[in-house]
Amino acid sequence: MKILVLNAGSSSVKYSLFDMSDRSVLIAGIIERIGEDAASQSYSLANNDRTRDEISCRNHQQALQLLFETLAACRVLNDRRELACIGHRVVHGGEHFREPALIDTQVMRHIAEVIPLAPLHNPANLLGIEEAIRQMGETPQVAVFDTAFHQTLPDYAYRYALPERLYEEHGVRRYGFHGTSHRYVAEQAAQYLGKPLPETNLITLHLGNGASVTAIQNGRSIDTSMGMTPLEGLMMGSRCGDIDPAIHFYLSRTLNLSNEAIEALLNKESGCKGICGENDMRAIHRMSETGDDLARLALAMYAYRIKKYIGAYFAVLGRVDALVFTGGIGENDAWLREQVCLDMTLFGIAIDQEKNRKPVRPCDNISQPNSGVTVLVIATDEELEIAIQAMQCLEQPHP
Amino acid sequence: MKILVLNAGSSSVKYSLFDMSDRSVLIAGIIERIGEDAASQSYSLANNDRTRDEISCRNHQQALQLLFETLAACRVLNDRRELACIGHRVVHGGEHFREPALIDTQVMRHIAEVIPLAPLHNPANLLGIEEAIRQMGETPQVAVFDTAFHQTLPDYAYRYALPERLYEEHGVRRYGFHGTSHRYVAEQAAQYLGKPLPETNLITLHLGNGASVTAIQNGRSIDTSMGMTPLEGLMMGSRCGDIDPAIHFYLSRTLNLSNEAIEALLNKESGCKGICGENDMRAIHRMSETGDDLARLALAMYAYRIKKYIGAYFAVLGRVDALVFTGGIGENDAWLREQVCLDMTLFGIAIDQEKNRKPVRPCDNISQPNSGVTVLVIATDEELEIAIQAMQCLEQPHP
Ligand SMILES: Nc1ncnc2c1ncn2[C@@H]1O[C@H](COP(=O)(O)OP(=O)(O)O)[C@@H](O)[C@H]1O
Ligand SMILES: Nc1ncnc2c1ncn2[C@@H]1O[C@H](COP(=O)(O)OP(=O)(O)O)[C@@H](O)[C@H]1O
Repeated sequence: MKILVLNAGSSSVKYSLFDMSDRSVLIAGIIERIGEDAASQSYSLANNDRTRDEISCRNHQQALQLLFETLAACRVLNDRRELACIGHRVVHGGEHFREPALIDTQVMRHIAEVIPLAPLHNPANLLGIEEAIRQMGETPQVAVFDTAFHQTLPDYAYRYALPERLYEEHGVRRYGFHGTSHRYVAEQAAQYLGKPLPETNLITLHLGNGASVTAIQNGRSIDTSMGMTPLEGLMMGSRCGDIDPAIHFYLSRTLNLSNEAIEALLNKESGCKGICGENDMRAIHRMSETGDDLARLALAMYAYRIKKYIGAYFAVLGRVDALVFTGGIGENDAWLREQVCLDMTLFGIAIDQEKNRKPVRPCDNISQPNSGVTVLVIATDEELEIAIQAMQCLEQPHP
Repeated sequence: MKILVLNAGSSSVKYSLFDMSDRSVLIAGIIERIGEDAASQSYSLANNDRTRDEISCRNHQQALQLLFETLAACRVLNDRRELACIGHRVVHGGEHFREPALIDTQVMRHIAEVIPLAPLHNPANLLGIEEAIRQMGETPQVAVFDTAFHQTLPDYAYRYALPERLYEEHGVRRYGFHGTSHRYVAEQAAQYLGKPLPETNLITLHLGNGASVTAIQNGRSIDTSMGMTPLEGLMMGSRCGDIDPAIHFYLSRTLNLSNEAIEALLNKESGCKGICGENDMRAIHRMSETGDDLARLALAMYAYRIKKYIGAYFAVLGRVDALVFTGGIGENDAWLREQVCLDMTLFGIAIDQEKNRKPVRPCDNISQPNSGVTVLVIATDEELEIAIQAMQCLEQPHP
C-alpha cells in the first residue's frame, strides 16, 4: 500500500511517497518557485540518488502534473491505482477538526472558513487539495491538520484574556501548531519508555525554523506555546515569539510603520535574525565562537525562553516522564540541549554530557541514569505521521 | 521629619504625608476628575476621620494648591519647612534610572525623553513634578521609578527577539513595572525569613488591578512579567496580558479596527472584564458562586497564568526561598492563593488551608511547616516605600 503525502505552500509543493508495508520512503521531493521564472524540482530516491532540474512551472496544476510524471518516470508509482490515498498537510483546522478528515466538499468548505486565521497557509493548502482532486479524483484524500492534536486543550489554556465575542464570533483563541510532530514524537517517546501513551506525561520541544513546545498529559496536548497563529511562543529563526502586545502601538505611533510592515517585521526580520542577523542556528554558533556578542545574545535568549516554558509546563503537568527534543535544532544542537538542561536539577533533569554530544538516531536517551525525568532526542517525521494518520483515517468506518 | 509622596495621574493626584520618625501616615488623599465639571477631593487622617468634598479644580496647578491648603487646614503641615522632601512616583525611568533621583532639570529632561515608551503616564507624572517645583521650589524633590528595581535584569531576559536597532535606537525592551511594590515586599520577606536580602531568592506576585510577577535572585530582580509597557504578562482586571502578537493583524484586517481602537480594547476591555464583563475580583467571585460560567473561566485563566509564571521563574531561579502574594487580590483573595498553590508540591509549595483563610496583616506565613518554599502574604505599601527611598536618596552624598 502506497501513500503520497503532499504539503502545498504558496510557491512550492513538497511530497513524499511511502510504502506503508515497511514505512519506507520511495521518493521525496520538492517543486519550488512555482510561478516564477526559475522554478525547479528536486527529489531523492530510496537508493539516495538525488536529482535537481530547472523546470517551467506556472501554477499548482502544472506542479502536480509534473509530480505524477516524476513518480511514473522514477518507477515508484507505475499505476495510479497503487496509491491508497493522498495525505494533505493542512496548517489550520480551526475548532472543527480534532482528527484527520476524509476530504469532501464540506471538509473543503471548513478549511476555507478558517482562512482569516491562517491567511498565509490555508489558501495554498486548499489549492493543493483542489488540484489533487482534479487530477486524482478516484484516490481518497485525507486532510491532516497541524492544529488537530491541540484541540484537547482546556478552555483556560486556549482562551486569551480578550473580549468574549472575539472568541465566540471570530474564533480568536490559541490553536497551536506542529501538532503532527508533537504527536509523532509523543508516540515514539511512550514506546521508548515502555508506557502506554494515555498514561504518559511529556514536554515536547519542536525546535526547527519554527519552534514550539507542548505539555502533554496522559497522551493529550493540554498546552502549547504557539497560539492563534505560529507567531506566538518561543523565539524562532525569524519570528519574534512572545512580545509585549503594546509594542505594535509604539511601532505604528513612533516609527510610523504600517500594519503590513509590522507583520513582515515580526515574522521575517525578528527572532534570531533580528538579534544577530542570522536565522540558521549553525551559522549563529559559528558567529558566537568568533566572539560575536549578538550571536551570544541570540543563543542565550533562545535557550532562556525554552527553560521558562519548561518550568511553566512542569507547573501545568505536575509530573513529567520525559522531556523530548526534536526538529532540526532539537535533534542536532548539543550545545543548546545542554544549555536548556543546565541548572534544572530542581525538576529532576540531569543529562549525560557524553550521550548528549552524539545521540543515536532516531531515538536516544541522553539523561543520566538517576535523572528523575528522562531526556530524549527523537528524530521527528511529520510526513510519515501524516501518512500513518491518513491510513488510520481511511480504515475508520465512514458514514 | 515629614515626607510627602505624590502620584500625579492625568486627571488625579494621590498623596500621602508620612511622619518618618514612626513611618505613620498623617494624611492620605486623592483629588479626582481634575479638569472635569465634578472634581472632588477626599482624604483621611490618622484618626481615621474621612472627608469627601465636591470641588472646583481646573488643572494640576489648582490641585496642588488645594493639596497644600488641605495639609495646612488639617494641621498636619503647619509650616512648609517641616517638609523634608517630596517623593514623586514616576512610572517609566527608561534605562537611565536604576535608582531614585534628586530632581533637577536634567532629571526632568530624562523623564520627558521616555514619554514615547509611557505616553499615558510620564506626561502626567512630569506635570505633577513641575507644579510641585513651582509651588515648593525650596523643598528637595525626588523621583522614584516603577521601572528602577528591574534594571538589574540580564540582557537575555530584557531583550525581545526583535530587530537589534529597535533596542539600540529606540529602547524597545522589557522594563518591568510595580518595582516599588516588588522591592518593598522583598525587603519585608527577607526580614521575615531572617535572611539578608542579598542572599534571598523570591517570587513576588503583585496582584491588583494591574498584576505582575517578579523573579528575585539574591535580592535583585532578574525577570518580571510586565514588559516595555504594563500591558504584557499576567491577565489583569481589564488588560489582556500575554497574547499572540499576530492577533493585532487579525483585528485590523478582519474586523477593520484602527490601532487606537485595538489599544483601547487590549487595555480597557480585556483581562477579566473581557472574559466575564467584570474587573473587580470580588464581583467575579460572586458571579462564579451563582454559577456564571464566564466568571468561572476568568478565575481559572487568572490562576492558571500565575501558575505558569511561577513555574517559569522556578526554572530561572533554581532555588526559591519564598513565594510572596501582595496587592489587593494577592492580600485578600484566599481562593486564588489556594488555587495557585494547588498541585505545586513538585516545587515544594504546600499551604495551610486554615492559615490561608485569614492571614494576619501586614505579613503572615501561610505555608505548612514542612513546605520547602515559604508562602507569605504581605501587605504592600508603595507610598511608604517611595517615602523611604526618597529619604535614602536625600541622605546620599550628591555632587
Ligand atoms: N548540527 C546542527 N546544529 C545546530 N543547528 C542545526 C544543525 N543542523 C540543523 N540545524 C538547524 O535546524 C534548523 C532547521 O530545522 P528544521 O526542523 O529543518 O526546520 P523546519 O522548521 O523548516 O522544518 C536551522 O536553524 C538549522 O540551523
Ligand atoms: N477580599 C477580596 N477578595 C478578592 N479580591 C479583592 C478583595 N479585596 C480587594 N480585592 C481586589 O483587589 C483588586 C484591586 O487591587 P489594588 O491593589 O487595590 O489595585 P491597584 O492595582 O489599583 O492598586 C480588585 O480587583 C479587587 O476586587
